[in-house]
Amino acid sequence: MDKRLQQQLAFALELDKEKNVLRQTHLSGHGRRENDAEHAWHMAIMAYLLREYANEPVDAGRVMLMCLLHDVVEIDAGDTYAYDEESKKTQKAREDAAKERIFSLLPEDQRAELTALFDEFEAWSTPEARFAHAMDNLQPLLLNDSNGGSDWRAHGVAAEQVYRRHSGTLQGSERLYRESDRILQKHIEAGNLKK
Amino acid sequence: MDKRLQQQLAFALELDKEKNVLRQTHLSGHGRRENDAEHAWHMAIMAYLLREYANEPVDAGRVMLMCLLHDVVEIDAGDTYAYDEESKKTQKAREDAAKERIFSLLPEDQRAELTALFDEFEAWSTPEARFAHAMDNLQPLLLNDSNGGSDWRAHGVAAEQVYRRHSGTLQGSERLYRESDRILQKHIEAGNLKK
Repeated sequence: MDKRLQQQLAFALELDKEKNVLRQTHLSGHGRRENDAEHAWHMAIMAYLLREYANEPVDAGRVMLMCLLHDVVEIDAGDTYAYDEESKKTQKAREDAAKERIFSLLPEDQRAELTALFDEFEAWSTPEARFAHAMDNLQPLLLNDSNGGSDWRAHGVAAEQVYRRHSGTLQGSERLYRESDRILQKHIEAGNLKK
Repeated sequence: MDKRLQQQLAFALELDKEKNVLRQTHLSGHGRRENDAEHAWHMAIMAYLLREYANEPVDAGRVMLMCLLHDVVEIDAGDTYAYDEESKKTQKAREDAAKERIFSLLPEDQRAELTALFDEFEAWSTPEARFAHAMDNLQPLLLNDSNGGSDWRAHGVAAEQVYRRHSGTLQGSERLYRESDRILQKHIEAGNLKK
């Protein structure tokens, strides 16, 4: 086997580990905890389906690929819960080291391309990145809403924290932010989010 | 919320159930069984990374979306193991009913679009469909190879059955078929596949 294909398949096999990185979100139907690969798959399809609501036109293929890869660094760095302020302090250093190791498995041209795509997501620097972030917020919101807000209740999350996160959705999609706001208000009224 | 967005979000939530459909393949590192959503995520990224080996040029966005959605009918129909000849007899009827129910959750334009994409995959009728099938074969092969062929051994699968399936990879990528053949020959020699 030539070296290029060998590197590509080594990266593909490495990706498999992302299926073992658990998130705090639970599957609908009060299911088990979701993993990063499932979350990314779900976000990518939602990005395609909902792209008409992006604030600016997005390239569907690029936004899907960005969704699919946006958590790959968590293979090494682990998932950092959006409302865990302590873990968030070390998140960038852990994720930078992971990015270097994992993408370096690829041939140089693909290493550079996918690293740039990952960085673009992290920087919120394009319409695709901003819309992918909207999906990163909306996908767990849908699941948590379907479970009566049980993930927020389990962690004692405050409405203020959730709004700080979901305000990012505004940058990608005003329409989907309005819908997220409607869902969040319902959970504040029900006492699932602390005031 | 307007009806269109309501339908799109209902479909998005329905997709979540695909994470509970288990396949016969096990994750690398002799892990647990893989589910359909993880498999689809993995295939979609591989399709992007390996598209240079497609026999004919493919539209990366379309092939990724096709990979992401190709197993959605298994939410109702369940996974049919590639080497379970009895289940395969009823597979088409079960999957047709599921396709009708699940895609009908969407607004009409998206129902028609995604049903057509799903049918295109099933019909092997385009370069994208043929390459997506190559990924559908190669992705579990990589995992099973990493586990020393344990999935084949557990089911007593014969080399002839595996070659019948993997011959389809030839239609999407001669180069990746040659690599698959190299892997399969190794497992025949090791006794992991019955002659």
